[in-house]
Amino acid sequence: MNFLSDNIVGASAPVLQALMQANDGAMPAYGGDDITKRIKARFAEIFEHEVSVYLVTTGTAANALALSSIVPPWGLCVCHKEAHVIDDECGAPEFFMHGAKLAGLPGVGSKLTAASVSAYLEGLPKAVKQMPPKALSISQVTESGMVYGLDEIAALSAVCKAHGLSFHMDGARFVNALVTLGCTPAEMTWKQGIDILSFGATKNGCLMAEAIVVFKPALAEGLDYRCKRAGQVTSKGRLIAAQLEGYFANDHWYDNARHANRLATLLSDGLSQLPGVRLAWPTEANEVFPILSKSLDQALREGGVQYHPWTDVSLPAHESVGADEALVRLVVSFATREDDVRRVLEIARSAASRQAAE
Amino acid sequence: MNFLSDNIVGASAPVLQALMQANDGAMPAYGGDDITKRIKARFAEIFEHEVSVYLVTTGTAANALALSSIVPPWGLCVCHKEAHVIDDECGAPEFFMHGAKLAGLPGVGSKLTAASVSAYLEGLPKAVKQMPPKALSISQVTESGMVYGLDEIAALSAVCKAHGLSFHMDGARFVNALVTLGCTPAEMTWKQGIDILSFGATKNGCLMAEAIVVFKPALAEGLDYRCKRAGQVTSKGRLIAAQLEGYFANDHWYDNARHANRLATLLSDGLSQLPGVRLAWPTEANEVFPILSKSLDQALREGGVQYHPWTDVSLPAHESVGADEALVRLVVSFATREDDVRRVLEIARSAASRQAAE
Amino acid sequence: MNFLSDNIVGASAPVLQALMQANDGAMPAYGGDDITKRIKARFAEIFEHEVSVYLVTTGTAANALALSSIVPPWGLCVCHKEAHVIDDECGAPEFFMHGAKLAGLPGVGSKLTAASVSAYLEGLPKAVKQMPPKALSISQVTESGMVYGLDEIAALSAVCKAHGLSFHMDGARFVNALVTLGCTPAEMTWKQGIDILSFGATKNGCLMAEAIVVFKPALAEGLDYRCKRAGQVTSKGRLIAAQLEGYFANDHWYDNARHANRLATLLSDGLSQLPGVRLAWPTEANEVFPILSKSLDQALREGGVQYHPWTDVSLPAHESVGADEALVRLVVSFATREDDVRRVLEIARSAASRQAAE
Amino acid sequence: MNFLSDNIVGASAPVLQALMQANDGAMPAYGGDDITKRIKARFAEIFEHEVSVYLVTTGTAANALALSSIVPPWGLCVCHKEAHVIDDECGAPEFFMHGAKLAGLPGVGSKLTAASVSAYLEGLPKAVKQMPPKALSISQVTESGMVYGLDEIAALSAVCKAHGLSFHMDGARFVNALVTLGCTPAEMTWKQGIDILSFGATKNGCLMAEAIVVFKPALAEGLDYRCKRAGQVTSKGRLIAAQLEGYFANDHWYDNARHANRLATLLSDGLSQLPGVRLAWPTEANEVFPILSKSLDQALREGGVQYHPWTDVSLPAHESVGADEALVRLVVSFATREDDVRRVLEIARSAASRQAAE
Repeated sequence: MNFLSDNIVGASAPVLQALMQANDGAMPAYGGDDITKRIKARFAEIFEHEVSVYLVTTGTAANALALSSIVPPWGLCVCHKEAHVIDDECGAPEFFMHGAKLAGLPGVGSKLTAASVSAYLEGLPKAVKQMPPKALSISQVTESGMVYGLDEIAALSAVCKAHGLSFHMDGARFVNALVTLGCTPAEMTWKQGIDILSFGATKNGCLMAEAIVVFKPALAEGLDYRCKRAGQVTSKGRLIAAQLEGYFANDHWYDNARHANRLATLLSDGLSQLPGVRLAWPTEANEVFPILSKSLDQALREGGVQYHPWTDVSLPAHESVGADEALVRLVVSFATREDDVRRVLEIARSAASRQAAE
Repeated sequence: MNFLSDNIVGASAPVLQALMQANDGAMPAYGGDDITKRIKARFAEIFEHEVSVYLVTTGTAANALALSSIVPPWGLCVCHKEAHVIDDECGAPEFFMHGAKLAGLPGVGSKLTAASVSAYLEGLPKAVKQMPPKALSISQVTESGMVYGLDEIAALSAVCKAHGLSFHMDGARFVNALVTLGCTPAEMTWKQGIDILSFGATKNGCLMAEAIVVFKPALAEGLDYRCKRAGQVTSKGRLIAAQLEGYFANDHWYDNARHANRLATLLSDGLSQLPGVRLAWPTEANEVFPILSKSLDQALREGGVQYHPWTDVSLPAHESVGADEALVRLVVSFATREDDVRRVLEIARSAASRQAAE
Repeated sequence: MNFLSDNIVGASAPVLQALMQANDGAMPAYGGDDITKRIKARFAEIFEHEVSVYLVTTGTAANALALSSIVPPWGLCVCHKEAHVIDDECGAPEFFMHGAKLAGLPGVGSKLTAASVSAYLEGLPKAVKQMPPKALSISQVTESGMVYGLDEIAALSAVCKAHGLSFHMDGARFVNALVTLGCTPAEMTWKQGIDILSFGATKNGCLMAEAIVVFKPALAEGLDYRCKRAGQVTSKGRLIAAQLEGYFANDHWYDNARHANRLATLLSDGLSQLPGVRLAWPTEANEVFPILSKSLDQALREGGVQYHPWTDVSLPAHESVGADEALVRLVVSFATREDDVRRVLEIARSAASRQAAE
Repeated sequence: MNFLSDNIVGASAPVLQALMQANDGAMPAYGGDDITKRIKARFAEIFEHEVSVYLVTTGTAANALALSSIVPPWGLCVCHKEAHVIDDECGAPEFFMHGAKLAGLPGVGSKLTAASVSAYLEGLPKAVKQMPPKALSISQVTESGMVYGLDEIAALSAVCKAHGLSFHMDGARFVNALVTLGCTPAEMTWKQGIDILSFGATKNGCLMAEAIVVFKPALAEGLDYRCKRAGQVTSKGRLIAAQLEGYFANDHWYDNARHANRLATLLSDGLSQLPGVRLAWPTEANEVFPILSKSLDQALREGGVQYHPWTDVSLPAHESVGADEALVRLVVSFATREDDVRRVLEIARSAASRQAAE
């Protein structure tokens, strides 16, 4: 019953199969092969838009490279203060952007609002001592498992346009958000003003396969060189492309995300009905953030359920975590078994009733 | 009959099998898993030395990260002017070293000599306008398929010590050199003064798996952070480690290299016995560099043999490529079939005798 | 009546004279001259310690170079969130540190406390995704005109030692703090654990002359090269050194700072006795931060007094700036005339009494 | 008799006077003052073109900042292999360009030809492993004291246009070249296709004052931020601007350069008429590069003449420096006295006749 993250499992069967099939025979190296060409065309189809696509091996590389193409070394990139780019990548964006700065704003559920971004931008001193804002980066799904609505993305995009900012989406859990919103990839990205996307596939079934997807051709200038000088042009590149072929085939990526989201809802609903449990914010994709009594927390851990405590985040105005409570995160992946979720709920229920009885 | 490079094929069967086996179940992400721990211990065994090991996905990343840990941003790294680090990585070392400079020296067979490196270092102005030399990087096997003897490495190491330089080996074809020299990994590295090694496994059978191996503990300071900020800490890291388990098991890596070197010798011997063919320099590992008459070059290509022309390299003093000749490179890999090599030789022989008859 | 900053005036007479005297004749360029040698020896005398000294032309360069020598590209530098290095230098430290990050902590009067720094460091996740803290930077005088006591510096140094951090002081107004504390340069720096200092002289009388002073020899490694590659090795370097000779001669630097601090006290005392005026925090050097009624603010400006509004700063817990109030900054320099201060007070007094009468 | 360089003397009298005059009173800091505004307008007048102007304190900073605005971090900048930017700035351009690379080509007199640059560019591999060329940088006067003719600059510009390169001129001795060519600043720059210029004034009379002059507005984007983050926005900026006012007033800069060039010609003509002396290449500005017999070299040094030996440069095809000869450099500055030049010639003549007599 491991709910630590969605990258603790290996690749899904169809992805591995596609990899095996692509392994045989000689093909041009460094992405000059046919599989890579095919997968790039596939991205254009999926997004209903001409796109430049760059395949890389980690989400950190995808994010840092994407940001480096929209923020000059002397620029500022606005993001949430709990964003993966500012908080979990050991300065990769700053490295790839050559010293450009990330400005982290607060907001519940790791979500930014158009109002807060706009206010922040208006308040910046207009002087040469102040790095000028050049980009906005949001995570969809956010680091707190929430999903931006299409109108929210559009509103943020309007702020970007008003201030001359490029707009990046960190889509480490991209398809989980698509499933939640029930919209198309196009609707969730360029149709709302997204300029460049980190498209994640590793967490949802691949071995290691991420893509930078550029919707605005000018932003792609030099990005192939940036990838190469970052050590992100894989010599046997077809083996990354092949993973994505397996990932996209037969809606496999959607199936995986639907499964994870559905089980997360199951888990979330089950937990939140128990006494002594409330959700810090709604469960909108494949992650659940309950506030538990410490005794329930202990019971779950003793029952063999693994998950991370969650701290240092913006809580809703009315909310706080009590001294005898714990805010925790449970992540459901494509590989999580429904049985495991049900067992978690059972352990929780019986612990809750025991505690009620005491 | 594809002799373009040794990265045009996929992974070898044992490597893929190890990958499959490691795929199941939940394990800590980002290299916190047991397979990664095991493989790090295995490196220590193989090198008979305490080592710090960092797994990455490309040789470019391995080289650039290794150099960044031994050259400060204001330093100079000496290498051969045909070295992969200076010539084929789109400035990755300069990026990772934050603007430090590579100084490329000439030398036949892409080999440096202790004498030439020493003379270069002595001749550098000792002034603040001159970036001070901080490291030497050699490629073993070299970019021209030659192999440094142990005494040559030791002599270069002595120059490094005399000038306070760290010593890096780019071992993209590490085991091919081991097979040639018949020595141990320890003998070819730290016992001759190598401080840090880019250990290549992709070309010789892996999917994407390279390692930075550090022999001098002080040089490893911060290298884990450097890897992370370079986007080179793979979330499902065990799947890289697993490749290396398959690679090392049952001397598979040696078998692959022996096969490639043997066929390269077969190809080299066969070609060099033909009229109108001579070797630019000896074949010492898995690459052959013949100078062919242009008609023979054409005959081979028409016969379906694929390989690269080779230009802009240091030739031996007595040697030159005539106007009706071509210097070319043929690379043999672990996956090359002996039949293909024999067919190449047949095509070459019949073309040569046709030409002799004309 | 210009109180906008202490860099709005030119150089003081003794500094200019020293410059003139040093101008004649031929001398080695790039700091190889005797005046530069003399001034470096003078720094050692002044600080009663062996020091490495690097002369540069701006405080931003001094800070960014100093930090680059104590924070690796993958490290974190802790500072106050209102520090000049994080707020006013357009990312110079991030540029020179090659992407290392500044973490800004809150605190009244732009001062850090040992407790808050310690708590921050304890709370940092110990994981490779988190850049490790490597240095602490404080400003003496702070950006809010306050002065760290010797015991406060010592306490911060103890935190640094406990966590393996280097300790930097931004001494843009170094001697103003010395005058306040009545201690020696040694007592305010290395005797309390400061490793490296940005020694400012421009604001207090020089044309453009700042120095990086290194107390810990290991930190000076390569700093000469860093200065050169930053374009901070001035060809006619003696002309910077000469300014500092004039600055140090006959205690001129102390005289200038005493004058500025004395007038700031005069201004501060005078203002704070008026109804409708209170100090946001005590005046401890040459800057005054009163909270004025908006009508008084207007009266001063109409009377020809120039100064900056001051926003986005940490206020004392009990304090807030009312809707009809303004927090402002008045800076007194070595060149400010006592008459001007008295005129400001007169304008303020008469405005205050007018307002009282209404 | 110091002919080591033209930066061994202080500033000229009119420059110092202008500095003194600008010193009094309060003015906005960081270049917001009227003198800075005036000098920027003056540059536009002098160059008969709308220009963006950035004042900095060293030539290295001017060059590195200029190049950083025309070469992306993944690009290549072509220059002469003896260029100051590649050879004498400790990697400043690589630092400011964030790892972009300088490619140094050979050529007599430190001059590039359109043919050699074109051939180099044509020969570059068109692959992602190869950093793409983005700029050409030439020095006018060159590092060997030669001057590009207007047609030569135009021819290089045509090569730049054909390959999409920006064109930079390092004008450390800009006006010395103007005097030689007898053309206008406009004719020597943007009229021949120069996009961005490092305008040097320090060597020819200023204290420390250099300017980046941008002719193509798009290239100036962000350059003010780049200057700030490089620590090159001087707080008392008017004091740099004032130097340039003194420099430009009454054709002072031309007078200084005419003086230096005339004395260099006198020195050059006198030396080259002596037996055992020949010029390595013509004297075209204020530097003389004679090849002397070692005995004459010794006689000059014993006579108290100071100058640098000159090595590692491209010589004309027919030329070589014999074992008993020395190639040396003598630099004449605005402050060199005609008497000193005549004394050098006398020493040389009497040594030459002594040697002829022996």
